Amino acid sequence: MFSQEKRVGVAVLGLGNVGSEVVRIIHDNADDLAARIGAPLALRGIGVRRVAADRGVPVELLTDNIEELVSREDVDIVVELMGPVEPARKAILSALENGKSVVTANKALLSISTGELAQAAESAHVDLYFEAAVAGAIPVIRPLTQSLAGDTVLRVAGIVNGTTNYILSEMDSAGIDYQTALADASALGYAEADPTADVEGYDAAAKAAILASIAFHTRVTADEVYREGITKITPADFAFARALGCTIKLLSICERVTDGDGRQWVSARVYPALVPLTHPLAAVNGAFNAVVVEAEAAGRLMFYGQGAGGAPTASAVAGDLVMAARNRVLGSRGPRESRYAQLPVLPIGSVSTRYYVSMHVADKPGVLSTVAAEFAKREVSIAEVRQEGVADEGGHPIGARIVVITHRATDAALSDTVAALADLDVVQRVASVLRLEGTAE
Amino acid sequence: MFSQEKRVGVAVLGLGNVGSEVVRIIHDNADDLAARIGAPLALRGIGVRRVAADRGVPVELLTDNIEELVSREDVDIVVELMGPVEPARKAILSALENGKSVVTANKALLSISTGELAQAAESAHVDLYFEAAVAGAIPVIRPLTQSLAGDTVLRVAGIVNGTTNYILSEMDSAGIDYQTALADASALGYAEADPTADVEGYDAAAKAAILASIAFHTRVTADEVYREGITKITPADFAFARALGCTIKLLSICERVTDGDGRQWVSARVYPALVPLTHPLAAVNGAFNAVVVEAEAAGRLMFYGQGAGGAPTASAVAGDLVMAARNRVLGSRGPRESRYAQLPVLPIGSVSTRYYVSMHVADKPGVLSTVAAEFAKREVSIAEVRQEGVADEGGHPIGARIVVITHRATDAALSDTVAALADLDVVQRVASVLRLEGTAE
Repeated sequence: MFSQEKRVGVAVLGLGNVGSEVVRIIHDNADDLAARIGAPLALRGIGVRRVAADRGVPVELLTDNIEELVSREDVDIVVELMGPVEPARKAILSALENGKSVVTANKALLSISTGELAQAAESAHVDLYFEAAVAGAIPVIRPLTQSLAGDTVLRVAGIVNGTTNYILSEMDSAGIDYQTALADASALGYAEADPTADVEGYDAAAKAAILASIAFHTRVTADEVYREGITKITPADFAFARALGCTIKLLSICERVTDGDGRQWVSARVYPALVPLTHPLAAVNGAFNAVVVEAEAAGRLMFYGQGAGGAPTASAVAGDLVMAARNRVLGSRGPRESRYAQLPVLPIGSVSTRYYVSMHVADKPGVLSTVAAEFAKREVSIAEVRQEGVADEGGHPIGARIVVITHRATDAALSDTVAALADLDVVQRVASVLRLEGTAE
Repeated sequence: MFSQEKRVGVAVLGLGNVGSEVVRIIHDNADDLAARIGAPLALRGIGVRRVAADRGVPVELLTDNIEELVSREDVDIVVELMGPVEPARKAILSALENGKSVVTANKALLSISTGELAQAAESAHVDLYFEAAVAGAIPVIRPLTQSLAGDTVLRVAGIVNGTTNYILSEMDSAGIDYQTALADASALGYAEADPTADVEGYDAAAKAAILASIAFHTRVTADEVYREGITKITPADFAFARALGCTIKLLSICERVTDGDGRQWVSARVYPALVPLTHPLAAVNGAFNAVVVEAEAAGRLMFYGQGAGGAPTASAVAGDLVMAARNRVLGSRGPRESRYAQLPVLPIGSVSTRYYVSMHVADKPGVLSTVAAEFAKREVSIAEVRQEGVADEGGHPIGARIVVITHRATDAALSDTVAALADLDVVQRVASVLRLEGTAE
């Protein structure tokens, strides 16, 4: 299994924020890592797009020939930190086929994989670790796959995208609008030049797919995750949220759902939702991440920490690297992909949630009754209604605003109701529709 | 490695709250566990002190011959949930010597072991898992040993004893005294008939020893952990804590300390401390547990959940059981004890903390200056002083109270100062001395 002198050979692909930090850890902590592994690590090479002398590492370690690097005889473990899906996929498959264990932080790739990576690892009898793919430094993958291996996970709900959490936290605390908060996030380096993957929820959906897959022993891909972004959230939504004792968070939710016939499903979804201030996720602000896991025996657990950034992500990668190296030394293997349950994914229409609906209406008698009737018709039970006058800038009444909080109902019934409300003559405009999570019925 | 038909044979020792729940999980979740392990579990027997028909399990599974049970040919894994140190130690050693992997929640035993259990597991090439020994269902051991295996842990600070946290939370929220809160905790089943192990900090110290050992790759035993209990905390302390924007928590703290000569030490200590309300541990109330880990690359992580109780503890035990069983099926092994660093334990006198000192003094000019001089003499820098008049029940002034908050100084200097203050003529009484944690300098 070993290359020269019982050293564990490592190839790192990618030398961005995370890759540089991983290389630093391998170098600076060499003695500690060797003691924990049982053999020293040897960094055999670093795969980059462009070999240059100014990358802060010895230039002779650099190579742009990824294919050659991942098949080297003296490489035991490949750490993939290149992103995006390609060329990472090709490099990982090639590494696995060459019998190398692989550590990756590539959530986009993992969340679309229909099993080819896991199967390649299985065929080669090597490890495929990806703790850093979800929530950076926060241990989430290992607790779900190992610590909770004897329990039944019921629900995973997390704030797993730092960019959107920073934007929403700023909108909440500073009362600013979405565009201003996004500009602030960009200025601070929390948002990318094209923020689409973050603000439209694609990143959170990729992580939800990975979390749902491991929590429920079922392969869920990113395109099976229902997804809404945060671009339509307004300061008025935050004002209403506060009045209700809530804030607004972009949540990645994975749930085990048992239907009326006793059949089990997996629901995986990402959307901005009202969260009560008393809920542990409400206090997770700025670029921090947190994941709440509810399991049958364990009850509710929360994991909190830095979900992104070079050093925190590198910590998770280095942990995987040590475990994979240790397995090489002992001739052991870590957990394999578990997808024996293969539960079907529940369509969003059948998911049961609570809704918050805010609408501008004509200020005349009978409007509330007309509005309430639309909910009743679809058997959506109303928990709370608030009605208040709306005035123009001169203080003259120009209508009223009705806010409805529903009890739990299917998303289909709630969507239908909202569509019907929008068609009512007395409703000028449905201003906002948000789900409400983390409360009782 | 296998007994009959590729089943993994399990013996459970102890049938209390946790044992019963583990037996239930093995039975009720049999299909799921088999799929995750790769082979079904077979419960071979349950070791109890007294065999009787009314224990809720088939009586033929029960035996009071522990020695025979743990050496049975068809047993692969022994789950020890008997406590206390003996007869558990003897049973575990016997199981390991017979080549069985062991899962235990026995923090008292683990915290006094000087390595004999780890060595026995090593000699037999089997697993010794103990996730349930610290913080019940909350994954802490596995994240520290595996997820952070590539990082450098700087500090672990936790609320790991539910009984004392319940008592302190009640004292804080209801303004009641220690004895009343203890009685409430007993009535609710949160405190045992003899609460010494909890309220004097022995349980928290045992867990600190385990956490320090794994976090710093150093063997720390319970008797090396500095320990103070919560029995002297008064409602007045909580009133002052609130005035300072703090609450009081019993903390288990494990720290990597670098001295002036660059030498590294481990500090492990348990005491009640003032904690700012803005610190994540301040919000951990009632019987809940939480552990905050600070690592070089990962930054600050927090793990939160139920730290005790039959079901949550059984969840952690069952996770270990599945991992140990899976290793049996694959011929793999999990992480071994790592104590290569063997850092010396820092004496409490050399530990640097901040102090809060409350004293009753004569109400006359110059007292504050006299008091301050005692701090200055020992180079303890004062951060904040509050002085206020104290009146008797009729409203007549009878003296004054001085509260001092210090900057960081060694425990030895602070203890000396407090002793000198108590000897001053102008000081009637040093009412309370508490450390302050979780703040800047």
